Amino acid sequence: MQAEPVQPPIRASAVIRNIKQLVTVAQRPIEGASGALQVLNNAALAVYHGRIVWIGPDNEAEPLFLSTRQDGITIVDAQGAVVTPGFVDSHTHLVFAGQRAEEFHLRRAGVSYAELLAQGKGILTTVEATRKADAETLLALAQRRLHLMRDHGTTTVEIKSGYGLDRINEEACLHIINNLKALEERASSSVPQQVRVVPTFLAAHVLPLEYRERRADYLDLVVEELLPSFVGLARFCDVFCEAEAFTVEECRRILSRARDLGYHLKIHADQLSPSGGARLAAELGATSADHLDHASDEDLKALRDAGVVATLLPGCSYTLRSPYPSARRLLDLGLTVALATDCNPGTSYCENMQMMIGLAMAEMGMSLEEALIAATINGAKALALEEEIGSIEIGKRCELALWQLEDYREIGYHFGVNLVQSTLTLL
Amino acid sequence: MQAEPVQPPIRASAVIRNIKQLVTVAQRPIEGASGALQVLNNAALAVYHGRIVWIGPDNEAEPLFLSTRQDGITIVDAQGAVVTPGFVDSHTHLVFAGQRAEEFHLRRAGVSYAELLAQGKGILTTVEATRKADAETLLALAQRRLHLMRDHGTTTVEIKSGYGLDRINEEACLHIINNLKALEERASSSVPQQVRVVPTFLAAHVLPLEYRERRADYLDLVVEELLPSFVGLARFCDVFCEAEAFTVEECRRILSRARDLGYHLKIHADQLSPSGGARLAAELGATSADHLDHASDEDLKALRDAGVVATLLPGCSYTLRSPYPSARRLLDLGLTVALATDCNPGTSYCENMQMMIGLAMAEMGMSLEEALIAATINGAKALALEEEIGSIEIGKRCELALWQLEDYREIGYHFGVNLVQSTLTLL
Ligand SMILES: [Zn+2]
Ligand SMILES: [Zn+2]
Repeated sequence: MQAEPVQPPIRASAVIRNIKQLVTVAQRPIEGASGALQVLNNAALAVYHGRIVWIGPDNEAEPLFLSTRQDGITIVDAQGAVVTPGFVDSHTHLVFAGQRAEEFHLRRAGVSYAELLAQGKGILTTVEATRKADAETLLALAQRRLHLMRDHGTTTVEIKSGYGLDRINEEACLHIINNLKALEERASSSVPQQVRVVPTFLAAHVLPLEYRERRADYLDLVVEELLPSFVGLARFCDVFCEAEAFTVEECRRILSRARDLGYHLKIHADQLSPSGGARLAAELGATSADHLDHASDEDLKALRDAGVVATLLPGCSYTLRSPYPSARRLLDLGLTVALATDCNPGTSYCENMQMMIGLAMAEMGMSLEEALIAATINGAKALALEEEIGSIEIGKRCELALWQLEDYREIGYHFGVNLVQSTLTLL
Repeated sequence: MQAEPVQPPIRASAVIRNIKQLVTVAQRPIEGASGALQVLNNAALAVYHGRIVWIGPDNEAEPLFLSTRQDGITIVDAQGAVVTPGFVDSHTHLVFAGQRAEEFHLRRAGVSYAELLAQGKGILTTVEATRKADAETLLALAQRRLHLMRDHGTTTVEIKSGYGLDRINEEACLHIINNLKALEERASSSVPQQVRVVPTFLAAHVLPLEYRERRADYLDLVVEELLPSFVGLARFCDVFCEAEAFTVEECRRILSRARDLGYHLKIHADQLSPSGGARLAAELGATSADHLDHASDEDLKALRDAGVVATLLPGCSYTLRSPYPSARRLLDLGLTVALATDCNPGTSYCENMQMMIGLAMAEMGMSLEEALIAATINGAKALALEEEIGSIEIGKRCELALWQLEDYREIGYHFGVNLVQSTLTLL
């Protein structure tokens, strides 16, 4: 005869036990958890049909699950790891060919970007290399980068097109991004390390060379042809609103049309100069405005009031040796701040969100807790996925990073090496 | 009948072939190599009795070696890797217990170091934890850090004592450092990944608590007892010359005695204030002066004229959020500049020399070529080992880093992830 469990049994397909420190980053208080990140020591959690159904003390896990004699329940031993939500890297340009190391070193040596553009270098180099590469090569390159991201703790990656810049090549890149998504989903059936991929059509990244004398034609192409035909291939539409790229008016035209077609919106805003991008993001109700180096207090307040996530990309300042935008200022104004890698071959060639957290703490005035929130739940908000991912809470997906640490507070303090042991996705 | 080789055969125990780019960092020109780093494309090299005996084009390797029908020759296929000298990390404090993440976050939140010291935090926390830990634990912790260093491309590590601060504990730490050396040497027989360990007796790191009222007694202990009895256990003697630590006069007394006993000398100089440490290093002919944040031009010229290596430690500025010393200024004055991690639990918890190269390039004005020289041959100079290691040249040891790159110029440009595939030591 067996004693009845005190609490009713819970249906679970998997239980993760022996978690030394569960950093939930929960938005609602969790029983027994404490601090800004709602941390629970010696914890366990249970998953059913891919959703977290229970979070609690490890020593209460057994009676709740094992006594119910469920068939096929998977028990995962976290072996005393620290567990956080997997990182949500909400801004990357992962699909590209070639590299621009030479340009990087020339810039460091003092050659201006304008001069490099005149020499045919800069972003158009990547457009050319990407157009020339076949789909298989592009997919393999992107997959290698995606796996590096995963190995550093990222479980969701937004990926933009934008190096194709014509119908054939933009469509090809979006197909690659979607293939990557499918590949990662298939891979997950054997190894539970799925990476969630969110595709973005970066419709206006830079004016392609062949349209230099007919700018309006490119805008027409994007608005009249590409946007309607890419519905379903991309969840977001993004634009680069900047003196060197596209004007506020051009961006408004593209994004309004995109919104009508059902895309969520993003804007590369106010990176190199005050471009008006942040204001446009607020006006159109974009999900996020990214970069924001030159946004004014008024711009930022407009974003805050419109509920637009402010995404900061410290890898660009590191690469370009330009002043870091102050995350402190944004946080003090009450904005929702996300951190992302902006992984791209020109201005931030980095797959590692831990590096971004370190830079945000060293150079942007963020505390570790603020940086972790920015890299997880606020990244999810920047993808309009905060109901699904970004924190460890009942009802959410189980997409985790396992850390080889005694305490999450070692993140940022112990730097320059990968502290993540693995990611873990339970379906 | 076989054709005779055109050149006389060379005796080799091992040949490394199929090197896409051999970045020799040679001090003397190498035939066919070019640039500040003397780079040779499509190269091979040969080793005999642990010394490099031949460097040349891969397609000339075969007739030189294989036709001589030597028995037991090992052929290593580098599989198209970029190859550089292994990093020489010439300044670390690797043997310690505990961690100081809490202190780190308090400092970031604005609490002063003086305040933390008053609360019993700071370096004395590490002294206490290290004294309490048993030798096995200390060895295991240090070994884990050493392997992380190796996995990021380091093949030589200097390790300082200095958290023991009494006869028993300093001696124990020096034994651990020497055991680590022996362990790594033994490990190399099966896996050719030896890490060279150089032990340093950091005689005057901080005044131990129990000597607070009898400072002179501690000096006497170091000079009269410890220094003579540690001969053979340490190759270098180091001191922390700083207002919070030891005066120029105290350091002079310790280092003069050390020099007489045959130690090479190092000084932690002018880190937090102008301490006079650099001048003392020049006066005594130290091998290196390290930190140098507050050294004046006159101090630096004295170092240069005395042939003292200037070792910069960017991890400290990153951690303490203090201004980075300008490597540019030192290079323009003609100094020999080395880079090291200063890996320690208080001011730079990082095992990765690639991170230091990135920071030196982003924050200290170094070019990639200068940073690579600083992290290899100049690190060797900072350990008085430049005849043995630090570059890939005839007569030197074969201690290499293999990189998963198309071109070494991707180092620093592609950042935040480990670009080293493995190290390789051929005996
Ligand atoms: Zn971007
Ligand atoms: Zn030090």
